Amino acid sequence: MAEDSLDRLAAVIAARRGADPESSYTASLFASGRARIAQKLGEEAIETVIAACGRDDAAIVPEAADLLYHLIVLLADAGLSLDDVRAELTQREGQSGHDEKAARSTI
Amino acid sequence: MAEDSLDRLAAVIAARRGADPESSYTASLFASGRARIAQKLGEEAIETVIAACGRDDAAIVPEAADLLYHLIVLLADAGLSLDDVRAELTQREGQSGHDEKAARSTI
Amino acid sequence: MAEDSLDRLAAVIAARRGADPESSYTASLFASGRARIAQKLGEEAIETVIAACGRDDAAIVPEAADLLYHLIVLLADAGLSLDDVRAELTQREGQSGHDEKAARSTI
Amino acid sequence: MAEDSLDRLAAVIAARRGADPESSYTASLFASGRARIAQKLGEEAIETVIAACGRDDAAIVPEAADLLYHLIVLLADAGLSLDDVRAELTQREGQSGHDEKAARSTI
Repeated sequence: MAEDSLDRLAAVIAARRGADPESSYTASLFASGRARIAQKLGEEAIETVIAACGRDDAAIVPEAADLLYHLIVLLADAGLSLDDVRAELTQREGQSGHDEKAARSTI
Repeated sequence: MAEDSLDRLAAVIAARRGADPESSYTASLFASGRARIAQKLGEEAIETVIAACGRDDAAIVPEAADLLYHLIVLLADAGLSLDDVRAELTQREGQSGHDEKAARSTI
Repeated sequence: MAEDSLDRLAAVIAARRGADPESSYTASLFASGRARIAQKLGEEAIETVIAACGRDDAAIVPEAADLLYHLIVLLADAGLSLDDVRAELTQREGQSGHDEKAARSTI
Repeated sequence: MAEDSLDRLAAVIAARRGADPESSYTASLFASGRARIAQKLGEEAIETVIAACGRDDAAIVPEAADLLYHLIVLLADAGLSLDDVRAELTQREGQSGHDEKAARSTI
């Protein structure tokens, strides 16, 4: 079993992909398609933003967990994983944010 | 040095917190305050949503990396960490998404 | 009765403000408070973004209508109206977007 | 000239569509394409959400103006107009929000 709860979550998400949408929220998300998965990710980000602007910082944690869950579902739906994102972050190591941003910006 | 690139990123973010905003994008984010950090998180989520709706799935990866970076900055600004989110995810393990959602929903 | 359907909508929203939340979605929104109204606005914007990235442009219309409805509710909740936004737009008339953006930008 | 500043704004946006992107922000938006227009709409919605959660309600007005501007650009890019949204709102008149939501909801 993976040591990191993010990887355990990713494994659970992968395992539920083919499950019955009636019994699994994860399976129902995959069944609803890419646009719907992206929409849910966006909604969880909005909830995280609103929690961040509230008075109770602890309320950010469950929203961040929801956001990560939906991000991992989106990655899985695209045949990607958190390890692809980790590899991107490793590649950026040593690069300053200002440089990194300048390298990506087109507008 | 942390083995997980997410934790290494969190360590770099923590280290740059007090740096010169002119020389560090991370320091400039912390200096701009909570509302601005939340705004940037929201913007990166929008970019992830749009990449998710595009034709090139590989384009999701750098947007997901940006989203995670800004999420870790937000958590740090609130005195929280990715480990708090991991603990939340561990606590949810074994709970079905449908149940978990029902437990949280108020509307 | 107002000629513009946006103003008629604003009048209906104002009239329903004090109604029974069980019988009126608008009343239930006002009762749920500012953070929840802002969240719904954000969610409708995400849906508009996703419709905009889809193949059926006509699908943008109902999402834009939902977005405007929630924007008018938010304005009303803050003691503001579409006329305040119209006044802002009138004031900007003649100003180029590049100038206007430069005038507002701080980062 | 249109009496409603929203319609005047829509006319200005339509007129600038073919202008030089260097001299017109509106022209540069159209030139950047649908995904970028949708992204900007999403970003302005995030800014509106954050203004809505702040202490200064008057700060909502310029954000709402930016949101409407980008919504009108998006509609124009899709060959649509605010009148299409007004027609949708007129069609919904007399329908309660709870009914309207139930009619649209699929999940």
